[in-house]
Amino acid sequence: MTSLDPARVISDLKELRQLTGDQDGSQRIAFTPLWCAARLWLKAKCDEIPIENHRDAAGNFWATLPGESHRELLIGGHIDSVPNGGWLDGCLNLLAGLEILRRIHHHYKGKPPVTIRLVDWADEEGARFGKSLFGSSACAGTLDMNEARGLKDKDGIELPAALRSLGIDFEKVKNSGVELKNAAAYIELHIEQGPVLLDKGLALGAVLGTFGVERHSITFTGQAAHSGSTPMNRRRDAFLAAALMSPEIYEIAKRHGGVCTIGSCNTKPGIVTSVVEECRITLDQRHLDATALAAMLADAKSASARFARDCNVNFRWERLWQIDPILFDPQLINWCDEVIQETCGTTMRLPSGPLHDAAEVSLSGIPTVMMFVQSLQGISHNKIEDTKEEHIELSVVALDRLAEKMMRWIASMK
Amino acid sequence: MTSLDPARVISDLKELRQLTGDQDGSQRIAFTPLWCAARLWLKAKCDEIPIENHRDAAGNFWATLPGESHRELLIGGHIDSVPNGGWLDGCLNLLAGLEILRRIHHHYKGKPPVTIRLVDWADEEGARFGKSLFGSSACAGTLDMNEARGLKDKDGIELPAALRSLGIDFEKVKNSGVELKNAAAYIELHIEQGPVLLDKGLALGAVLGTFGVERHSITFTGQAAHSGSTPMNRRRDAFLAAALMSPEIYEIAKRHGGVCTIGSCNTKPGIVTSVVEECRITLDQRHLDATALAAMLADAKSASARFARDCNVNFRWERLWQIDPILFDPQLINWCDEVIQETCGTTMRLPSGPLHDAAEVSLSGIPTVMMFVQSLQGISHNKIEDTKEEHIELSVVALDRLAEKMMRWIASMK
Repeated sequence: MTSLDPARVISDLKELRQLTGDQDGSQRIAFTPLWCAARLWLKAKCDEIPIENHRDAAGNFWATLPGESHRELLIGGHIDSVPNGGWLDGCLNLLAGLEILRRIHHHYKGKPPVTIRLVDWADEEGARFGKSLFGSSACAGTLDMNEARGLKDKDGIELPAALRSLGIDFEKVKNSGVELKNAAAYIELHIEQGPVLLDKGLALGAVLGTFGVERHSITFTGQAAHSGSTPMNRRRDAFLAAALMSPEIYEIAKRHGGVCTIGSCNTKPGIVTSVVEECRITLDQRHLDATALAAMLADAKSASARFARDCNVNFRWERLWQIDPILFDPQLINWCDEVIQETCGTTMRLPSGPLHDAAEVSLSGIPTVMMFVQSLQGISHNKIEDTKEEHIELSVVALDRLAEKMMRWIASMK
Repeated sequence: MTSLDPARVISDLKELRQLTGDQDGSQRIAFTPLWCAARLWLKAKCDEIPIENHRDAAGNFWATLPGESHRELLIGGHIDSVPNGGWLDGCLNLLAGLEILRRIHHHYKGKPPVTIRLVDWADEEGARFGKSLFGSSACAGTLDMNEARGLKDKDGIELPAALRSLGIDFEKVKNSGVELKNAAAYIELHIEQGPVLLDKGLALGAVLGTFGVERHSITFTGQAAHSGSTPMNRRRDAFLAAALMSPEIYEIAKRHGGVCTIGSCNTKPGIVTSVVEECRITLDQRHLDATALAAMLADAKSASARFARDCNVNFRWERLWQIDPILFDPQLINWCDEVIQETCGTTMRLPSGPLHDAAEVSLSGIPTVMMFVQSLQGISHNKIEDTKEEHIELSVVALDRLAEKMMRWIASMK
């Protein structure tokens, strides 16, 4: 083999699916035996090249091809999946990166101009302990140790105990930060997990950054009252006020260009014969622009006040979680755009709704960009998750071109 | 004492509250020791008059003042309450009837023109076994024996076992029907449990009948999708479709004059980061007019189909329960109206949203009417349930006048 073989990425993906999936999808939940098996399989692939590899203090897996410069280009992904997951989410990135390492190793006869590293972040999905981006946030130094220390899986096993059984000392996971000391840039390929590229008929897109998120609960409180004896004009119906929020958030999202989701609704007393006294909904709002995100939140608050007044109920907001938008590096976005244009003839720039390990790397100050490849049906975290094989191959070619461009840039650094 | 003493009804009510209530309200749940204590207290009051009394095969309590005619005027109520109930629901009717029996006994020197009977129906509320109108439906012959036989309380005790411990043979409860064989008319006073009389500033109203009820669940099914990566125009949001039903049922109720309630809402997967895939709401619709009730149901079905189409989701309906409207006797409604006019100077006719024992008696073919007295706050089934004492006294006077009118009518029967 002498050059990039995108088809091999597809056969590697299928091999991994065979090894770690079942009829319900992929089952590589982080810190479980099948995840460890997937890791061993990946290590064997690296050993074939061969290149040095090891696990860091947070359980992230690193494979390193030393170059003439100690400055590093990082290519990242994650081999863990959600339960009943798809065959591409996370591992496409890794196996595309692996193929690029093979190509570079051969092309530069084992000594590229800069050091190239592949990283498999531990527990991107957070499927077992409910906290995503574990390995990358530990490495970037942003992990909240107090919060993470108390996380438990559904069997009551705590995260530190689960890590200990794999030889990882929870109290030392941030020591993994040392891995980033020579990092000059980080690139990550990922399936889009949404339908934007599909709707535009494009294979690939350059990712501008990850959405900021405002996540709140809104509780409306009215008065329970008999469904038979209470005239409509005397009701203080908490469900009515909450329900009015639903079409409203579509208007708010349209006005500002972000996304808003009411994901859950709970009613009390919640019986067929009573007007709803208390209704709690959750609202998730996302936007790439911090000002627009703040405006979406303000609009939702003002709508909730208006509906509460109209329905003669009370309301209160509680923040569940918040994160600012994370913008990727403008220069790297340009280069990503260029290689997509060269590879596919057309390109687009789009934000990422979901968070990714790349966001943590970017937060740590390393110039970062992501590339998205089209998702069929716009669906992920499901066994029906899929991408056309021709698009997978295009994504490997484009990512390889981006890696070459980055190497030249890093090599030119003073 | 020589004449009607409405104030004594209030002192009797307070005595009963003292005996069977606590700081949370009345605790006379049917077939429990406090209910039995209330029954013994009522029996003692009847023995003071004195008049014959006994318990029938369904556990209903009857006190009978035989008259010159064997034809009977029945005055009914129920001494059982919900847990943490009010001081008036059910027992006002009984104690007003008791006072009227005292007055008639005295006035006619123990021998009125027709037989007068007071009935305390067993388990109107259904608080313990979840099935209301037990005693009156057994007596009227409409009780579903197979359904009732399997009813359990929260401790797993079955209704037949609970009845047996009180000396009642479940399999023979319909033998109580014999009590109705000479019944010529049935009258019942009740607190309104809603705000209609309060809003009109009236003390009393004549009840036209009890609402028919259509009770359904509606389940909308869309597609779970990531709250960050799914553009608004690609969503199949089951909560949005369900939410649009909420303001719509207010329009439907306004158009047809009934009441509609969405009492509960459940969402799946019901997590903050996903568009709602499945949303189930319950819809309770009530109207006194069967045609209007059918039209309200048809309007709701058509609205649900429209919203499902607009939101690109599926929907299905499931009937949970249904009962036709029960209309009281037109002649008795006229007389009830007349005595209220004579007593208060103004009157109104109104339907009953909740069901009452009177509905069961009416279903058995006995001419029936109810009288409502104003509820403060329009609230019942709660310790804050209350009615002005002057209104209670007016209700006793008006019910007594109605009883006199009914006796003359029954006496005139061929």
